[in-house]
Amino acid sequence: VAKTLEFWFEFASTYSYVAAERVEDAARAANVELVWRPFLLGPIFAAQGLTDSPFNLFPAKGAYMWRDMERLCARIGAPFRKPSAFPRNGLLAARVATSIEDAPEIGAFARSVYRANFAEDRDIGERAVVAERLEACGLDAAAVLRRAESDGIKMKLRARTEEAASRGLFGAPSFFVGDALFWGGDRLDDAVAAAAGDS
Amino acid sequence: VAKTLEFWFEFASTYSYVAAERVEDAARAANVELVWRPFLLGPIFAAQGLTDSPFNLFPAKGAYMWRDMERLCARIGAPFRKPSAFPRNGLLAARVATSIEDAPEIGAFARSVYRANFAEDRDIGERAVVAERLEACGLDAAAVLRRAESDGIKMKLRARTEEAASRGLFGAPSFFVGDALFWGGDRLDDAVAAAAGDS
Repeated sequence: VAKTLEFWFEFASTYSYVAAERVEDAARAANVELVWRPFLLGPIFAAQGLTDSPFNLFPAKGAYMWRDMERLCARIGAPFRKPSAFPRNGLLAARVATSIEDAPEIGAFARSVYRANFAEDRDIGERAVVAERLEACGLDAAAVLRRAESDGIKMKLRARTEEAASRGLFGAPSFFVGDALFWGGDRLDDAVAAAAGDS
Repeated sequence: VAKTLEFWFEFASTYSYVAAERVEDAARAANVELVWRPFLLGPIFAAQGLTDSPFNLFPAKGAYMWRDMERLCARIGAPFRKPSAFPRNGLLAARVATSIEDAPEIGAFARSVYRANFAEDRDIGERAVVAERLEACGLDAAAVLRRAESDGIKMKLRARTEEAASRGLFGAPSFFVGDALFWGGDRLDDAVAAAAGDS
């Protein structure tokens, strides 16, 4: 029996970009239901005692990650340019994604924000950039932003991040299939297979 | 033109076990020359300010890793049992591996030590365990251990660990193909392909 694939992502996360490019097609090909779960890595890292991205805290790991991103993006044909600032603030984009997570445009919006961050070197923390991306997806940016900044959505995103921590999630991207956690874009295909009931 | 595949591994590293199980067969199938490069993660982690394995320092990451190991080992048919102590001290085994790294028995010895650690819950830091594994590979344990504990081998392993750090290596397992670094068992097939000239 097919199960739902939960895709947990953070807009500041490089490897989440690669997964976001592939996850919708992969789920569709396997006939698996996909749900998008934006959350914030900041509180997760803070609870681990980390005050910055591990890719900044550990320079060798960071240098490798940027090279790895070039290879991964080249392989899937996704554009990539190392941004001039990292990590960028994904809070507003995450609130927007939370507010439209069940809308058909969620995938297109997420990919558009990721490309702004990791292919076009735009500051996704800026309201104008997020608004532009909403319009590009055919959404009413003003209306969506108004709802995204409501207390209800702010609380929903906060609860989601707490849910992530309570379920053992510690990085992004991550996937849940029921209680089974899969961490990292390298586990996307395994997670899809688990959701499809193949494993 | 095929290039040499360098397999950098640490005996305390769980994911290095999974890679060690596969790397010799994968290299042979691709007609790629493989060299084994034992090194020590301790000094690498210490230089990052880490005083223990990240899997111990970050409990959620550790819990996930043990579950992930069960899945990975089941997939490749390798035995796995969570050891009662982690990480175990791989120094003596690494010195032995350094001393026989060009011998035909290096793969069998490495896999045997990994299975002792991650399938049989033996203390690979104990001289008797390492000696037993050497004998199981048809080697003269007393003679190999004597050489492994010589100043020459101690210095060679220390130099290797310094080489690892200077080349940007920050975790295990890692692979080098020329200057190109691949981190993690998930990159084994990519590294083999790069060595074969396929990418």
